Amino acid sequence: MGKTIRITVWNENRHEKKNPEVAKIYPNGMHGAIAEYLRTQSDFQVRTATLDEPEHGLTEEVLSQTDVLIWWGHSAHKEVSDEVVDRVHKRVVLDGMGLIVLHSGHFSKIFKKLMGTTCNLKWRVIGEGEKERIWVVDPSHPIAEGLNDYFEVEHTEMYGEHFDIPQPDNLVFISWFAGGEVFRSGCCYQRGRGKIFYFRPGHETYPIFYQPEVRKVIGNAIRWAAPVEGPKPNFGRAKPLENL
Amino acid sequence: MGKTIRITVWNENRHEKKNPEVAKIYPNGMHGAIAEYLRTQSDFQVRTATLDEPEHGLTEEVLSQTDVLIWWGHSAHKEVSDEVVDRVHKRVVLDGMGLIVLHSGHFSKIFKKLMGTTCNLKWRVIGEGEKERIWVVDPSHPIAEGLNDYFEVEHTEMYGEHFDIPQPDNLVFISWFAGGEVFRSGCCYQRGRGKIFYFRPGHETYPIFYQPEVRKVIGNAIRWAAPVEGPKPNFGRAKPLENL
Amino acid sequence: MGKTIRITVWNENRHEKKNPEVAKIYPNGMHGAIAEYLRTQSDFQVRTATLDEPEHGLTEEVLSQTDVLIWWGHSAHKEVSDEVVDRVHKRVVLDGMGLIVLHSGHFSKIFKKLMGTTCNLKWRVIGEGEKERIWVVDPSHPIAEGLNDYFEVEHTEMYGEHFDIPQPDNLVFISWFAGGEVFRSGCCYQRGRGKIFYFRPGHETYPIFYQPEVRKVIGNAIRWAAPVEGPKPNFGRAKPLENL
Amino acid sequence: MGKTIRITVWNENRHEKKNPEVAKIYPNGMHGAIAEYLRTQSDFQVRTATLDEPEHGLTEEVLSQTDVLIWWGHSAHKEVSDEVVDRVHKRVVLDGMGLIVLHSGHFSKIFKKLMGTTCNLKWRVIGEGEKERIWVVDPSHPIAEGLNDYFEVEHTEMYGEHFDIPQPDNLVFISWFAGGEVFRSGCCYQRGRGKIFYFRPGHETYPIFYQPEVRKVIGNAIRWAAPVEGPKPNFGRAKPLENL
Repeated sequence: MGKTIRITVWNENRHEKKNPEVAKIYPNGMHGAIAEYLRTQSDFQVRTATLDEPEHGLTEEVLSQTDVLIWWGHSAHKEVSDEVVDRVHKRVVLDGMGLIVLHSGHFSKIFKKLMGTTCNLKWRVIGEGEKERIWVVDPSHPIAEGLNDYFEVEHTEMYGEHFDIPQPDNLVFISWFAGGEVFRSGCCYQRGRGKIFYFRPGHETYPIFYQPEVRKVIGNAIRWAAPVEGPKPNFGRAKPLENL
Repeated sequence: MGKTIRITVWNENRHEKKNPEVAKIYPNGMHGAIAEYLRTQSDFQVRTATLDEPEHGLTEEVLSQTDVLIWWGHSAHKEVSDEVVDRVHKRVVLDGMGLIVLHSGHFSKIFKKLMGTTCNLKWRVIGEGEKERIWVVDPSHPIAEGLNDYFEVEHTEMYGEHFDIPQPDNLVFISWFAGGEVFRSGCCYQRGRGKIFYFRPGHETYPIFYQPEVRKVIGNAIRWAAPVEGPKPNFGRAKPLENL
Repeated sequence: MGKTIRITVWNENRHEKKNPEVAKIYPNGMHGAIAEYLRTQSDFQVRTATLDEPEHGLTEEVLSQTDVLIWWGHSAHKEVSDEVVDRVHKRVVLDGMGLIVLHSGHFSKIFKKLMGTTCNLKWRVIGEGEKERIWVVDPSHPIAEGLNDYFEVEHTEMYGEHFDIPQPDNLVFISWFAGGEVFRSGCCYQRGRGKIFYFRPGHETYPIFYQPEVRKVIGNAIRWAAPVEGPKPNFGRAKPLENL
Repeated sequence: MGKTIRITVWNENRHEKKNPEVAKIYPNGMHGAIAEYLRTQSDFQVRTATLDEPEHGLTEEVLSQTDVLIWWGHSAHKEVSDEVVDRVHKRVVLDGMGLIVLHSGHFSKIFKKLMGTTCNLKWRVIGEGEKERIWVVDPSHPIAEGLNDYFEVEHTEMYGEHFDIPQPDNLVFISWFAGGEVFRSGCCYQRGRGKIFYFRPGHETYPIFYQPEVRKVIGNAIRWAAPVEGPKPNFGRAKPLENL
């Protein structure tokens, strides 16, 4: 827990406004529930941003002060402006901002742009939700810090393979679902100077973002994805370093 | 060498028209030089397509009959229509068409879309071109079939790290340059049902596509990237496979 | 389906001798059941070898004529001589022989030597065996050829994560188990000039090696793992390739 | 820079005793030169150990108090006892101790055991040593923190591909050599609960371990490889988590 990490929690924040059931679970929005936890961590400095703010709350200034961006979206992916998506993309790839994509964010413009695939998958919501058991497959990874060899989400939406993503650079979690499916639930990627973590849990109709293990993983992922003062690549025409 | 692989060699074909030096080296275009070799292989069925043809020669019909697409572009990446790029993208990710991206194709719309990064790099052209030595780092890979532990391109443009690509699923070649740089020159990726190989050699002002090792690698890569009759993913809502 | 691949199916062949239940399922041994299928493939040339033969049937001569070795062991891993293990290891790493390790072969000396880890895991055999559902997570991979997006093994032993293996170079299958676990069931590795595939199914008390999908995967894996005429590395002291 | 990391710098320490040229460069041994730097870092607690101490200085007690072990060996790999190698191996794989293997340590028993390959390579020492230029290929990686896009080692031994190692989980550095070779010089691996980093620089006849960039990389690698409080895997027979 070294220097302060500046975090922006971005949320579409539409279900919370339109669906009383969701509003009841997340009176301050899912971003609020996530931020609430993150604010308990002394090395985190936390702000939030939502779709309906000007520029979706992701102005050049906000991004330039963000080390790690958390992304939750679902019903309004198309309403996110391409300009903001390009801005976030550049900030990740060129400046090294970390990006944590949660649950239905798999279909967000920014995740698809960074992955290069459809990011499509199988899904199911049944009644009160089915059981998910999330297994750690890389116990050496900092994102697995403080976990047991699995944890459970008792009631949730199912996501199943095939999940159309590039093979992760490092795979940390695999989910088991009561209905018979599996899913690569914790996926690490490098894109340019930035690090990206996809984390599956988090459907809006369940209080998953209050669950301690889910919160711990998000915190771990933030510390893993925080920018490194690595080299700024010097692209373009280059003089020879040796006599030719 | 099993069943026939249907190949389309796509070339921007502008340098050949505008630059007499290039036209002299490649009187039938770079696509012509590549196709000439591929036609010597009994398991290959070869056609070509170029930018200035209608729909760039990449109609739905042509793509539906293409198992592996080879891509060379440089000065006119922007002239490739987004519609054709999306068509190629879908054909790779959803249908499993192989894609071999050559040299300056690193900056093509289709490669950037599949990679999710800037695909930027260092480069240099000096006088008659400098020496590149391409080392095999995975001797078990089918793309290294028939090679020695390195081969040389005597006169070429330099490409240097940092090359802003995702970490390859499998890295086959690393280049050494006389001017002091290195480069990941043979990079394998899975994207959806498709396989992609980036191969560095091939600047238009040098007769590189006549070099036996370069031709052999392109042939090997085609056989590696040829589509597999793997599962067609069933995306979307799914019924449970177990009683819930 | 090109040139002939020479296959040796190695089996410990002890359960078949000692356990009437196993002998009834596999009257010709598990190696016999596997070989029976492989012999139906026109590009395969098949022999078998077992633990109790001299040198476990894996003499220098046999190995020198083997392109891909299949390995099943369980109760007698310790009886495999270190000399033969070293011989197999060299043949994989230096000569490029493919190796397919099945099920309980995860604990064989040769697999542990190639992986560098304990290769330990969770396991369970309950009554008639529980259900396993094997999901394809890389539909572009030749080992997934001809499969649907999953297949089931109705009655089997469970293997669960954490499976202590290096992260696979390419992960092809993930298993779901009725009892609540997941497992990385199809794992590709490069080691030197050789390719290795670990495939989970295959407990001795179930007729799994007669199941069409299991047989198909083994056949696919053999074709994938067959040696490539890649470069023989020239290790040791090297003269400079440039003037120093 | 969070909690204290306990480091043991292990060195064969034979060249320093036998070769006056080496003794002059490293009067306190290479381990002394490395430890000297590490002791300037407030989050590091440093001890050293050498081959000729009892149990090579790597008793159970020392290892149990070591978070990250640094390994330099060359002429006496065979003198390292198998018992100590097994002890280090267990400590990495089962307990998560980090391991940084330097230069000629590529041929140590412990590195070969963890890699599963021969770890062989090309090499050359010419006169005053030739120039190496180390390029960063993953600018997002914590091991690249504080570096420019390359750094040079002016006089060194050459190591060249093919380097017979498993494909790294993450590749951070590639070296260019004046004599015409390339080398994967910074390689990250997960093995069980532990993380391993191979770093090429460091021949005994050059003052490389005084070079600021080399020291910085070793420090970065230590912080990356420090153990994580991830799950202790529960191997062996497991009760079902669901009703069967």
